[in-house]
This record gives sequence, C-alpha cells and structure tokens, in this order.
Amino acid sequence: MYVIVVYDVNVDRVNKVRIFLKQYLNWVQNSVFEGELTKVELKIVEDRVKDLIDVAEDSVRIYILRGDKFLRTIELGTSKVEISEII
Amino acid sequence: MYVIVVYDVNVDRVNKVRIFLKQYLNWVQNSVFEGELTKVELKIVEDRVKDLIDVAEDSVRIYILRGDKFLRTIELGTSKVEISEII
Repeated sequence: MYVIVVYDVNVDRVNKVRIFLKQYLNWVQNSVFEGELTKVELKIVEDRVKDLIDVAEDSVRIYILRGDKFLRTIELGTSKVEISEII
Repeated sequence: MYVIVVYDVNVDRVNKVRIFLKQYLNWVQNSVFEGELTKVELKIVEDRVKDLIDVAEDSVRIYILRGDKFLRTIELGTSKVEISEII
C-alpha cells in the first residue's frame, strides 16, 4: 500500500520521529514522508510513532492508499528537505 | 475529487496561504488541509497558491485522489489546529 505521513510534532521530539520514519519512507517535505509499505511495516510505523510522540501535544496523520496509481501529486515550489537537520 | 494539501511555507507568507485554503478545504493539521474539490476549484487552488508562495523557498504538495473511498486515514495524537493563528 502507498502511505503518506504528515506530522506536527514538538521540536523536542521531532528528530526522533524523522530518524525513525526515514528507515521506512521517503522524506518529501519538511513534515511529510511517503512511500510503499507492507501491512506489517505500516503496523510497525503506527505503533512506533505512537510511542515517540506525546499524544496530548503532537499530531500525526497517516494516509493509506491501496497503491500510488490512485494518486496524482502536484508539487509547487521547492521540495528541498534539510537532510543535515536530522543527522 | 479528494484533495490533501501539505505545505512548508515561510512564516511571512503562511497566513495568506491558510486564509486562502480555508475557503476551499478543511484545516486538519497545522500544515495540512483536505477536502472535496471540483476540477475547477482545484485549478483555482493550484494557481492561487502558486501566486502566494515563493517557489524558491516554499514547498506545497497537492495530493489528488478520485475520491475519499480510496483513502484510509489514521490519526495519532491530537488534531487541534490553532484557529486563532489565522484570524
């Protein structure tokens, strides 16, 4: 399945979320990852992100599509992500 | 069609983008709007957002689906958006 993860996570925790998500998905915008996941991987992502965030303060939305053929993407502006931020 | 807009826009311009998008879509996370749009509305959104941002600095991704029946959404944490921010 094709998955888009968008997050609004406090600066104290956001790096941990990014480092984790980078193992499974592609970083496409400052607060957006996307890519193909299996069902098992999706479960791992969901559970681990839940552990990493503060559910009272942070927000993460995971959009799940059967595949990327159902999806069209328009990019406006630059898609630069600052890799150095999470190293 | 069902549309998800995620943006990373400089603080100098972000309020204008939000105020505009609120006319067409629902604000679901700090930097995410979503909702149903017609083809004509999507064109308006795309053109206007392009005008409002600095394409050299900002990034906006528009995900377009045929409908929300192709989409499953998992929400982790709180989905609070600070309405006061854009008034």
